[in-house]
Amino acid sequence: MLILVDAMGGDNAPKQIVNGCIDAVEESEGFDILLIGDGKQINEILKKRKYNKSRINIEHAPDTINNDDIPTKSIRNKTESSMVVGFNLLKEKKGDAFLSAGNSGALMAGALFILGRIKGVDRPALATIIPTRTGMSLLIDAGLNPICKPINYYQFGIMGSIYMQQFFNIPNPKVGLVNVGAEEKKGNIVIQQAFDLLGQAPINFIGNIEGRQIPLGEADVIVCDGFVGNVLLKFLEGIGSFIKGTLKEMYSRNFLSKASALFVRKDLKKISKRMDYEEYGGTPLLGVNGLVIKSHGSSSAKAIKNAVIKCSYFAKNCITNQILEALNTKGVEGIV
Amino acid sequence: MLILVDAMGGDNAPKQIVNGCIDAVEESEGFDILLIGDGKQINEILKKRKYNKSRINIEHAPDTINNDDIPTKSIRNKTESSMVVGFNLLKEKKGDAFLSAGNSGALMAGALFILGRIKGVDRPALATIIPTRTGMSLLIDAGLNPICKPINYYQFGIMGSIYMQQFFNIPNPKVGLVNVGAEEKKGNIVIQQAFDLLGQAPINFIGNIEGRQIPLGEADVIVCDGFVGNVLLKFLEGIGSFIKGTLKEMYSRNFLSKASALFVRKDLKKISKRMDYEEYGGTPLLGVNGLVIKSHGSSSAKAIKNAVIKCSYFAKNCITNQILEALNTKGVEGIV
Repeated sequence: MLILVDAMGGDNAPKQIVNGCIDAVEESEGFDILLIGDGKQINEILKKRKYNKSRINIEHAPDTINNDDIPTKSIRNKTESSMVVGFNLLKEKKGDAFLSAGNSGALMAGALFILGRIKGVDRPALATIIPTRTGMSLLIDAGLNPICKPINYYQFGIMGSIYMQQFFNIPNPKVGLVNVGAEEKKGNIVIQQAFDLLGQAPINFIGNIEGRQIPLGEADVIVCDGFVGNVLLKFLEGIGSFIKGTLKEMYSRNFLSKASALFVRKDLKKISKRMDYEEYGGTPLLGVNGLVIKSHGSSSAKAIKNAVIKCSYFAKNCITNQILEALNTKGVEGIV
Repeated sequence: MLILVDAMGGDNAPKQIVNGCIDAVEESEGFDILLIGDGKQINEILKKRKYNKSRINIEHAPDTINNDDIPTKSIRNKTESSMVVGFNLLKEKKGDAFLSAGNSGALMAGALFILGRIKGVDRPALATIIPTRTGMSLLIDAGLNPICKPINYYQFGIMGSIYMQQFFNIPNPKVGLVNVGAEEKKGNIVIQQAFDLLGQAPINFIGNIEGRQIPLGEADVIVCDGFVGNVLLKFLEGIGSFIKGTLKEMYSRNFLSKASALFVRKDLKKISKRMDYEEYGGTPLLGVNGLVIKSHGSSSAKAIKNAVIKCSYFAKNCITNQILEALNTKGVEGIV
């Protein structure tokens, strides 16, 4: 299996990306990596580490799509960029998955124009796992589509449900629609129409879910537009920092509090780990013809390492094919 | 000073509302309360408690606006409801503030139709205080206007800024616009136009603020539409429950962990208190001709008590008049 990695995308590229990939091959088996980007810069970083050289190779791509670049324009014009080269390799099946921490608008544009949507899908979405009181939930759309049509919420519900069935072995994932109240007629007209469509979908739709119910794990799949999803996701990251900082302060206050921390050390580590988005290793793009994973723009080597390992797991389990089959079986086509 | 209280609004009315009011007069001075609603039911509850009877009176109102009622319709037709009676008393200046935990749509409709907007304000908003790493921030709109026009975001920024100046003595409150990225051109067209307008407002506008920055207290005033605001606010409540539950589990695990909890007991109590929305006592409706405070639908007596005390503080400081003056001085009129 070959994971294609955009070595130039993200705030900490290429250094953290390359180091993360080396860490991935050191920690896990069953895959190789193709680092795509400026060969010279990548080599400089590789040279400084010891690793199994047969597992990491370079595909030189002289150009880069930056955060300020206009997505569609850059995908069309910067054909020698690491992102476009990566997409083309994936399209030609010269790799099993593509990972990038770069410009998310460009990532979606590239996925749409180069890979194309799974037949029947209107808009792909980013689907991210968030920790909850009861375990994990999937938030979809986590940031690609700020404005959605009712059909998009409908399809996010289906894709998210399939993903949770396949990836977490949840037999009948509960799907909730983020809204400002539990009652059916809440929210604007688009949300109300989304509610109606989701009610007809071949999924376990539990109705509206308020913000409060999300961290309590009352739905396995949380459906919302990309604006709300992205704000929530980043809000959760901020809360994670807030909590870590608060707990740290609390335990460093004096000798007694430091001593008390020892007794609950294991639990604290667990909480800390669950709050750390870098542990979750990237979010897949559901709904396109190929496995694409978006890593957070400010990903460190740890986040990249986890994303690569996740990629290899998805590729091994043929998630994309399963979504394709299930969407076609469930007759997503024809619904507009 | 007289605080008008809707004794019949909310999931736990009238019992928790009435008990909260009694607790308020026991804890704080300088105001009286007029409980509006079904006189018989209210009396039944009052009878069971000892309190200073001169400080609480009843205004009988035989009808109630329920959570399912259509807002505008119910405000127009249910003229004998506790909510409409309360609004009319406030309009006639027979009270200094009106508090309700009832139907929020109806509360806004009542505020708009009976009290009317402060001259120049397009849409009033709910403004709620949330705890952050550095202290407190104001979230506006916390749930009244699911869909907003650029002018609304602009006015929320101004009203929120004034509120934080007056209420928290912050000389030049930092105002941020919730968005999916820091860069200027992020978000849909409405958000971009809101960004431009806020940039021209006579406030300390710091630009876009991502979800992550909110809990870290990077803005004193957080501007968003009522859908995003309400989801975020309720999400925060859910996280509060999540954390309380997790910490409780962690410390109850065994003898050692229970013992260790004693060393950090004070801090834990502090964290718990900050996470508890019931401590914050209600959110004011900014932008209407009169002081209206909305309490959470599921408010307990504690939340009502804190809301009443907050009401008395606002009324004493003539917050509404200050907003009126400042909005007129700053020339909100004429901007569409």
